[in-house]
Formats: sequence, structure tokens, C-alpha cells
Amino acid sequence: MGFDQQAKAADVTGIPCVRTVVDLRSAIARWRAAGETIGLVPTMGALHDGHLALVAASLEKMDRTVVTILVNPLQFGPEEDLSAYPRNEAADGEKLTAAAADLLYAPAIEEMYPPGFATEVRVAGLTEMLCGASRPVHFAGVATVVAKLFLQAQPDAAFFGEKDYQQWLVVRRLARDLDMAVRVERVATMREGDGLALSSRNAYLTPEERAIAPKLFEMLGQMAAAIRKGRAIDDAIAWGKDELRRAGFGKIDYLEVRDQESLVPIEAGEEGARIFAAVHLGKTRLIDNLAVAD
Amino acid sequence: MGFDQQAKAADVTGIPCVRTVVDLRSAIARWRAAGETIGLVPTMGALHDGHLALVAASLEKMDRTVVTILVNPLQFGPEEDLSAYPRNEAADGEKLTAAAADLLYAPAIEEMYPPGFATEVRVAGLTEMLCGASRPVHFAGVATVVAKLFLQAQPDAAFFGEKDYQQWLVVRRLARDLDMAVRVERVATMREGDGLALSSRNAYLTPEERAIAPKLFEMLGQMAAAIRKGRAIDDAIAWGKDELRRAGFGKIDYLEVRDQESLVPIEAGEEGARIFAAVHLGKTRLIDNLAVAD
Repeated sequence: MGFDQQAKAADVTGIPCVRTVVDLRSAIARWRAAGETIGLVPTMGALHDGHLALVAASLEKMDRTVVTILVNPLQFGPEEDLSAYPRNEAADGEKLTAAAADLLYAPAIEEMYPPGFATEVRVAGLTEMLCGASRPVHFAGVATVVAKLFLQAQPDAAFFGEKDYQQWLVVRRLARDLDMAVRVERVATMREGDGLALSSRNAYLTPEERAIAPKLFEMLGQMAAAIRKGRAIDDAIAWGKDELRRAGFGKIDYLEVRDQESLVPIEAGEEGARIFAAVHLGKTRLIDNLAVAD
Repeated sequence: MGFDQQAKAADVTGIPCVRTVVDLRSAIARWRAAGETIGLVPTMGALHDGHLALVAASLEKMDRTVVTILVNPLQFGPEEDLSAYPRNEAADGEKLTAAAADLLYAPAIEEMYPPGFATEVRVAGLTEMLCGASRPVHFAGVATVVAKLFLQAQPDAAFFGEKDYQQWLVVRRLARDLDMAVRVERVATMREGDGLALSSRNAYLTPEERAIAPKLFEMLGQMAAAIRKGRAIDDAIAWGKDELRRAGFGKIDYLEVRDQESLVPIEAGEEGARIFAAVHLGKTRLIDNLAVAD
């Protein structure tokens, strides 16, 4: 974990920026002493309008909003895009300044995981399916970093995007299970005009792939409509996979209809049903999800 | 986890007793509001003078002392003594009342692990050797319950016995790694007049075994003296194992000399060296440890 994530540390202007747990707690303690509520928006940077929707949700509901930026090495598998993951702290700082967030917390990797660090937080069940099946270390890395961020900042609420629906379930579960007094809120997915869910990884798409990408959400919508009209779930899934392949997508990690609380497979019906997809498009892996019910 | 640990719930008199996280936090919040410091003493009940030494250490250093009693199913392996583990909450309550502890927190298993509970805290490295090698699930269960107790009570300090030295290291590690603002203190092992470390499991010993048991600590002392005088560590360990077997002990899970911070094996010398032992005596497993240096 020796790469220099914080090379651009000096570039953040506008929004106050802290780099250490001590400084973070000191800033938050002042607000707490004044009786203010604290919202936390954990991110890996490369901020887009989807992140800013989380910031806006926090600003609306909470007195103070703290945004964290950390490209968390624990949640990348050995074959994944940790070193290539987009980083641009100066631009992120400008966006957060314009959004009027109160504080940016951008710790170095060594501040989060000092020498000797050895603890892992795991959530069983929820993390073993869907994205957990194809990215086995991912959710333990997410759970561990989020547990640390929650304990460092002790926010009243934290805001996560619906695009990463399974992540939201995992975080809500760990916060409950570890008796953390934080509400874990879910914010609706921001989309481009053509329906593509905003994601930092969209930057990897070629123009040709970018033209294909919106068909993922389009297909989820068509599947949901078909299920609502009575089409069998297995049949809808098979049809969806065929259509995605025909549209030009590569490997389909999964395309599933699951209960949106437990993530267990749903046999029939639409109540509590949600469609989850992870598909490859060129070198990029895209995820999205949609409730079956209107 | 459906057994009825709390059958004796109504029997506690004297010391105030709470059963839920909400009541625990409410009691502690009143003390916090008055500016008082909080000490936590996590136990599995069956309290003896070793536990009361932890309570005394907390009472001496902290304004308020909360003792928890929970026979934690997560830290027992499938072959271990969960159902046989001694439970006597009424007697425990009397001892805590006499000791002048401020609060007993004795939650039901279902309060700690409600339906759907799925989160585990693991500490790598430290937990994979010594007791971790022979009790593979043990330390994950300890780490998980202690993380929960720390987050439920948010104490300023918590008190653990030196007899369970490895446990103290694991708890200290997880508290640091998860950014918990709690000091994890170590309290010297309480011993019978003949040197046997106090343990709830001593109650399992037959009179014949009880007569043999003190030779464990005696042997640790002799090994430490021999190493201080220059005896080679490997040689001292081999000698110690022979003497324990000769004294009547059964299977030796381990008898090792380790660095007392990292628990890695020590080749020679006494600085930071500590002898760790886990040995069976009849149906009982006894542990003890001793610093090599005087």
C-alpha cells in the first residue's frame, strides 16, 4: 500500500480539508458542541453528479456534511483497477466547494492502515452473492473501511448511492450489527439523459462502448415491465441476457431478480423484487439495479 | 443460540442491572453528562477474585465501572464447553454489589445477536497462533463481542486480565484498528496461594487434578529463571514439556516463548520474551503465561 495517493494534497482549495483522524475529530467536535448534526458521504473521489447528489441529500437533512475521499486498497482484488482508478483531488475539491460541503476528509492510506493494521470486518450472507461472488475480497474491504470511517467521524447519518445497492445493504447491516448509532441512507441513482447510471468507471468507456452502455438500464426497465405483466422471472432473465449480448455487452457476471432486503432469489411476483446486473463492456464492468414494482 | 442464559434475570439484587443496549446507554449518558469517566469490565460471569481485581482496577482509575456478563456463544467452538460453562448470575450480582461496581450489564443472547446478525470482526496474525491455532473460532468470537460491547458502552477504558494475555493483545489491536477511543488495560493475573491462576474453569478440576495444577505456573517460573541464566530457549521448552508430562498433565496444546508484542517466536534472550502455555489436565484446559524477565 505504498503508492502516493496524496500527491495532490496541497492542491485542495476552498473547502476545508483535513488529513488525519485527530483533525477530523477536532472539526466535528466543534460542531457537536454547538448541537449540530453530522452527515457523512464516503467516496473514492473522482466525483461526479452521483456523488454530488449524496452531498446534496446530506446538506438537506443534516447541519454539517463531511465528504471523505479515499481510494481504499482493501476493496480492490489483485486483478482489479486499483492503480488505474481515477484520482483528481483538486477537481474534487472544487466540486465540493461549489456544492458547499463543510469538510473534506482525505486521509493518506497510512493514516487509515498504519503498520501492524490487522483487523477486518466481514458481513456474512449478503456479501457472498451478486457482486460478492465475482469480487470475493470487495465487501470485506468496504465493510472494514466504512466501519473505520463511521468510528472516526461518528456521524448521525451516512449517505450511499442506490447504484451500489448491495453495498448499501452491507453497510446498513454492519452498522446495526456493531451497534453504531448512524442512519445509513440510500439516495436514488443519478443517470445520464440516456439512462446510464453515473459511475467513475464510465470514464473508461470508448465512444462505441458509451453508445451501447445505456442499453443496460433500458433492459432492466423492460424486464421489470415484463415481470409486472406476468412474465416468469426465469424467462425474463434469459431474455434479458440474450438482449444484452445482442446489444454488444461481454461477460455477464450476473443478471438476477432478488428480494431487495435479503438478496435471496425470488421465484415469482414483484413485491420487494429488484433486478440486479453486473456486465462487462470492453474492459469496463458496469453495475445497475432497478425495483420491479413501479 | 436459543438457550436460556437469562433464566436467573430476576435474581440480581443490590447492583443496578440493565439488560438492553438502550438502558445501558441511558445509564452511561447520565454519567457522561456529569463529566464522569467510564470503565468497562467484560466478563462471562462465574466471577472470581481475578474478575474482581479487574473491577478494582477500574474502580480505582475511573469514575464509573460497568461490568458485563455474557456467556458469548461466538467464542466457543462446536466441541467446547458452552453449555457446561458455569453460570450463576445471583452470586455474581452479590459479588459486584460488595465490590461497589456501578452497573451490571447482562444482555440476553438475542439482544446481542438479533435475527439477521451477520457481522464478524477478525484480527489477522495475532489470532492465528497459540490459542488461535487450537481454538480457530475463538478469537473472532471474542473480537466481535468486544467490538460490540465497546460500541454499546463507549467506555474510556476497558480492563482485561493478563492470564488471557493473547486476548488482551487482540482486543488492543482491534480497538486501535477500528479507531475506538478506548484504552485497553491489562491487569496482573490473580493467583491462588500455590500459584494457580484463577479461572472459572478451575471449578472443573477434581481434587487430584487441583493438586497437580499449580505445577504449571511453577514450571513457567523455572523455565524463566533458566532462560535468564542462559539456557537455550528450545532446550528450556523441551525440558518444560517433559516436566509437565511427568507432573501428570495431558496434552500440551503449546508451550512457547514468544515476543510479548507480536507473539512471534523468540530465538534467544529475554528482552520482551514471555512464556505461553496451554495444557490439558483431565477434561480441563488450563492456560497461563509469564514474562521471562524478572
